[in-house]
Amino acid sequence: MNIKRCVSFVVVVVCSVVVAAQEPAPTPKLNLMPVPASIKFHRDRLAVDANFKVATRGHSDARLQAGIFRFMKRLEGRTVLTLAPGFAPDDQMTQLIVQTQGPGQNIPSVSEDESYRIDITSRQALLSAPTVVGALRGLETLLQLLDADRNGYFFPGVQIDDKPRFPWRGLLIDVARHFHTMEVLKRNLDAMAAVKLNVLHWHLTEDQGFRVESKKFPKLHQLGSDGNYYRQEQIKEIIAYARERGIRVVPEFDIPGHSTSWLVGHPELGSAPGPYTIERRPGIFEPALDPTREDVYKFLDTFLGEMAALFQDDYLHIGGDENEGKQWDRNPKIQEYMKQKGIKDNHALQAYFNTRLLKILQKHKKKMIGWDEILQPELPKDVVIHSWRGTAALAEAAKKGYDGILSNGYYIDLIQPASQHYVPDPLPANSTLTPEEAKHVLGGEATMWAEWVTPETIDSRIWPRTAAIAERLWSPREVTDVDDMYRRLAVISLQLEELGLTHKKNQDMMLRRLVRSDDFGPLKTLVSVIEPVKEYRRYQQRPQNMLSPLTGVVDAATPDAEGARKFSWMVKEFLNDGPRYQLYRPELSQMLAEWQSAGASLGPIIDRSPSLKEIKPHAHNLSQLGDVGLEAVSYLKLGMPPPRDWRETSLAKVEEAAKPYGALEFVVISSVKQLVNAAAEVKR
Amino acid sequence: MNIKRCVSFVVVVVCSVVVAAQEPAPTPKLNLMPVPASIKFHRDRLAVDANFKVATRGHSDARLQAGIFRFMKRLEGRTVLTLAPGFAPDDQMTQLIVQTQGPGQNIPSVSEDESYRIDITSRQALLSAPTVVGALRGLETLLQLLDADRNGYFFPGVQIDDKPRFPWRGLLIDVARHFHTMEVLKRNLDAMAAVKLNVLHWHLTEDQGFRVESKKFPKLHQLGSDGNYYRQEQIKEIIAYARERGIRVVPEFDIPGHSTSWLVGHPELGSAPGPYTIERRPGIFEPALDPTREDVYKFLDTFLGEMAALFQDDYLHIGGDENEGKQWDRNPKIQEYMKQKGIKDNHALQAYFNTRLLKILQKHKKKMIGWDEILQPELPKDVVIHSWRGTAALAEAAKKGYDGILSNGYYIDLIQPASQHYVPDPLPANSTLTPEEAKHVLGGEATMWAEWVTPETIDSRIWPRTAAIAERLWSPREVTDVDDMYRRLAVISLQLEELGLTHKKNQDMMLRRLVRSDDFGPLKTLVSVIEPVKEYRRYQQRPQNMLSPLTGVVDAATPDAEGARKFSWMVKEFLNDGPRYQLYRPELSQMLAEWQSAGASLGPIIDRSPSLKEIKPHAHNLSQLGDVGLEAVSYLKLGMPPPRDWRETSLAKVEEAAKPYGALEFVVISSVKQLVNAAAEVKR
Repeated sequence: MNIKRCVSFVVVVVCSVVVAAQEPAPTPKLNLMPVPASIKFHRDRLAVDANFKVATRGHSDARLQAGIFRFMKRLEGRTVLTLAPGFAPDDQMTQLIVQTQGPGQNIPSVSEDESYRIDITSRQALLSAPTVVGALRGLETLLQLLDADRNGYFFPGVQIDDKPRFPWRGLLIDVARHFHTMEVLKRNLDAMAAVKLNVLHWHLTEDQGFRVESKKFPKLHQLGSDGNYYRQEQIKEIIAYARERGIRVVPEFDIPGHSTSWLVGHPELGSAPGPYTIERRPGIFEPALDPTREDVYKFLDTFLGEMAALFQDDYLHIGGDENEGKQWDRNPKIQEYMKQKGIKDNHALQAYFNTRLLKILQKHKKKMIGWDEILQPELPKDVVIHSWRGTAALAEAAKKGYDGILSNGYYIDLIQPASQHYVPDPLPANSTLTPEEAKHVLGGEATMWAEWVTPETIDSRIWPRTAAIAERLWSPREVTDVDDMYRRLAVISLQLEELGLTHKKNQDMMLRRLVRSDDFGPLKTLVSVIEPVKEYRRYQQRPQNMLSPLTGVVDAATPDAEGARKFSWMVKEFLNDGPRYQLYRPELSQMLAEWQSAGASLGPIIDRSPSLKEIKPHAHNLSQLGDVGLEAVSYLKLGMPPPRDWRETSLAKVEEAAKPYGALEFVVISSVKQLVNAAAEVKR
Repeated sequence: MNIKRCVSFVVVVVCSVVVAAQEPAPTPKLNLMPVPASIKFHRDRLAVDANFKVATRGHSDARLQAGIFRFMKRLEGRTVLTLAPGFAPDDQMTQLIVQTQGPGQNIPSVSEDESYRIDITSRQALLSAPTVVGALRGLETLLQLLDADRNGYFFPGVQIDDKPRFPWRGLLIDVARHFHTMEVLKRNLDAMAAVKLNVLHWHLTEDQGFRVESKKFPKLHQLGSDGNYYRQEQIKEIIAYARERGIRVVPEFDIPGHSTSWLVGHPELGSAPGPYTIERRPGIFEPALDPTREDVYKFLDTFLGEMAALFQDDYLHIGGDENEGKQWDRNPKIQEYMKQKGIKDNHALQAYFNTRLLKILQKHKKKMIGWDEILQPELPKDVVIHSWRGTAALAEAAKKGYDGILSNGYYIDLIQPASQHYVPDPLPANSTLTPEEAKHVLGGEATMWAEWVTPETIDSRIWPRTAAIAERLWSPREVTDVDDMYRRLAVISLQLEELGLTHKKNQDMMLRRLVRSDDFGPLKTLVSVIEPVKEYRRYQQRPQNMLSPLTGVVDAATPDAEGARKFSWMVKEFLNDGPRYQLYRPELSQMLAEWQSAGASLGPIIDRSPSLKEIKPHAHNLSQLGDVGLEAVSYLKLGMPPPRDWRETSLAKVEEAAKPYGALEFVVISSVKQLVNAAAEVKR
């Protein structure tokens, strides 16, 4: 990382606009995400036309060639150019040279070299990398560099030196609460590669489902999955697919808690006699493996041995979180065992369990990773701590000599804005770790817990926000400009669609289904300014179970609602423009008028679609917000003080609109309040 | 089929609106597609709320239960209701009873009984069928019956007796010119089931690709497919998936022509020495199997034996079309063989080949089906003729005692409107066949030839138009109201999205990619009134090959462009409203004004997106059409004659706009002309 180089990112871009006045203007701002470690600009540009060809130099192998093939197909898809298939000779007539020193690791690991360098002149682009994975990372950067103007498509003249800040940059996908198809996994692996994430953390087992075929213990998947599990052959297919993209696959088998689905087929492993059924509710449940029985360890030895052979990665995640030990407390045999062995409490019992587990994993040549809770004094140092608690816990572990990764702050299931996930840094500027200790902080993972996502909606919960987290984990610490992040995020979000991601297109589809018509404009207007309630409030306000349809308005709505962000930004600019109040006034008025009319139009739509009844109050309030906002804009524009009680009645309407319904809430409340308060301050 | 009952369909609907005045009004028009053989209405309605349950009566099996499970999931998806999982007891408290007599055929065949009956009262819906497939058909009808008003979701009170007019109702998917993924096939099988199609004709081999794994001759798929083929296990998965939905899978191995991809790995089968490479162009090519060599038949015996075991269906399609015999003409050994055997020409040689092939198929217990060309005097009667030539050819074959199916008129790759595909009837009203002969007409198939479709676009070429063909093949002959077909088609098209079909949602995605922005409104306006050129003109006007990107405007545009259909209809109504000229005037004016402004806005958009350059003239012409149309509307509204040369200059502009660019053409030309001509006739 080089701070100066990073800062120059913004500065030099502006320069390039100036210097290139005589030439076809290069793009004023690049849309790279994550921002590379270092970038320099020059005036050249490399044209991309039907003659565009690629050659390899140095090492070449099937993985690299497949990566270049995908690159060329995506380039063709965007440009609608038919490019010559195959590879060109490595000469001056070839526009792109991919120079790779060697294959890199056969099985990607945390020590893989992912660095690359790009040098683009008007005649040739040279992508060079020590490994195939580095070259793949560079190809993604190239696709983000592609730009166009009336002269055609081109790569801007840049020199990029890039490598990741952290070696562990993951996305956890929970396929247990809701099962996610091979297609979901594949397209998300494509998207991960596009933003340079390198670990798929595959959360495979939960109270609500056991999702992997076990040939040793087939009752696990047969009775624990409703038939929704991955065959071992499919697991291999995903691992291979990920490897092709330089992505590791770390499986998680969450024990001793979170294990109801295991016990459906194997009640003998539980700490209570059973019988057990697959859990359908969200939450934390009591079933836990019995850590006092030798046959449980024998079972785990066999099962984890099978899984260790199936999954190639060095690491295996054993979960270990949220076991409250209630079954243990109630089991006299377990209590007796603890007394005998001098195990003083459930924490110590779980530590004992983990120690046994660690030996099993070591036997099968796997490193253990688990959630915060597994950190116990007696734990050996080659265990990795996965922190949902935060950077402090991570630093504490690092000081003790444990490797760790951060997920606190990256819980994308909580429906928070990208700006919020963009802040947490596994190794913040104020870190007190020594450089040696800091090396233990390996990176982080976004966590897609799947209580409320299906294959239809999961992409919209992961993307585009996870790209912001990917940037935090790849780019220099100093890359923190939120506005620029959102600007680039919008571009990247569009590009993700070419990989089959459905985060954008499925919303309209869901709105059409709800409205039972192509005329869903008013509902779309509403959805552009409301969001699902945050954190864990959805279930509290609108209980459903794991078998419920996730096809409501709350499912169609997304975090970072576009209209609301735009509105808030315009309000800020408009108010800053006082006392003139001209800037964005027409746009604001138009938007507010649209709310008025959409709110009114929604009435008859809701009457035809009972599934929309739950948002009826929002429809009314949308109109109200439009009314109040337009009035405020008028007073400000005219410089006319509103009537005496206007502020109070208006704010009452806004407060009324702030109430959640259908687990959805307006996210323009504070901006409308700002308008009202500003208008109320107008003096004659 | 019962003509009177069918006619009553429309009449009784109107009655039901009248009689139900005191009750919550039932839906005035049903959205069933295909229209059932018989339907009666009564005043009841069956509420669908969170208490909705289903029970089976009589026979039950895994296939039925899975079908009911899917039904319930779709019902939940639309209503956002969480319904109780599993089956309820068969009593009066259960809202839906599915009564099935027996499993039907283990492997679906052309003689499967697909009939069913639905009887809905205010307390219960009874779906009864002799077979599981019949019950599945009825479940689809139920989902189409689902309606809603402010009182909630409900099934209207109807009694439906339904069965198909033809037993063979197919969709051919060509996976050879472009490969189509498992996902594409599965979602299209779902869609087929939704409109009661029952044959997937899987066009597996072509000059451009060999798409099935052969364990006997692995060079076929290894060298003939670019790696894009189905493993045998995947083939089985598709067959099982289809069977679950009461759909047969008929494989096609197109020989002796259309066989370049076979010869890449096995040049020894060809009529010229080779070597061969996979064909990348569209068209008809020379390579053909050598029908004079015994080892070719030995090869086919082994290969087709392998395939006959893999595919369960009674029929195997051998193609047989478009072999021009040029390789045969040039091969002295073949010429010599013909002389020796007294084979007078290439037709006779192909007949000889087919006769040999027939014996091989008979040995492997398959019935042969092939394209028109295979019909030769010496052909035995148990061969099925697949007619791309037309109903006359089909009738001729039937008179000779051959079974046949129709595809002429159902070539959905030709981008013609649904109204056009809706007309051809395998057994038209003027048929001269005797009832006995008519039985030979088994039905028909829509053909999705895949020169210009990818997984991204194929759905938009198949749907919704294929639903109109499905109706032609299922519903009584007298169901021919085009306006009502389009009305229902729009509803069904929406419903298909719940099955994952991408025909609607991918268009916006493609437009976003082309425009490189979310602001694709102007391009969408253009695309709503232009369509890809018809028949085989696309390639002539805009040559590409099989490896080219299909991501251009021509790929985003669809047949039956919505805006154009709406415009044409409004123009008709508006002109019929003369001399008043009020009806739809505001809507027409708004639409025309939108064309004006969209045309203007497209300029800068095209400048930023070189891939749009090819439609630049259309952007200009869109504005021109808007201008001319608005002028015409004005003259008509004011009753003011236009200037003397106005008609001529206006028609010249319209003619100019009629020119195709980018293999796209306006489909509002004749309507705008009508406006101009009407305006030009205005007398003072």
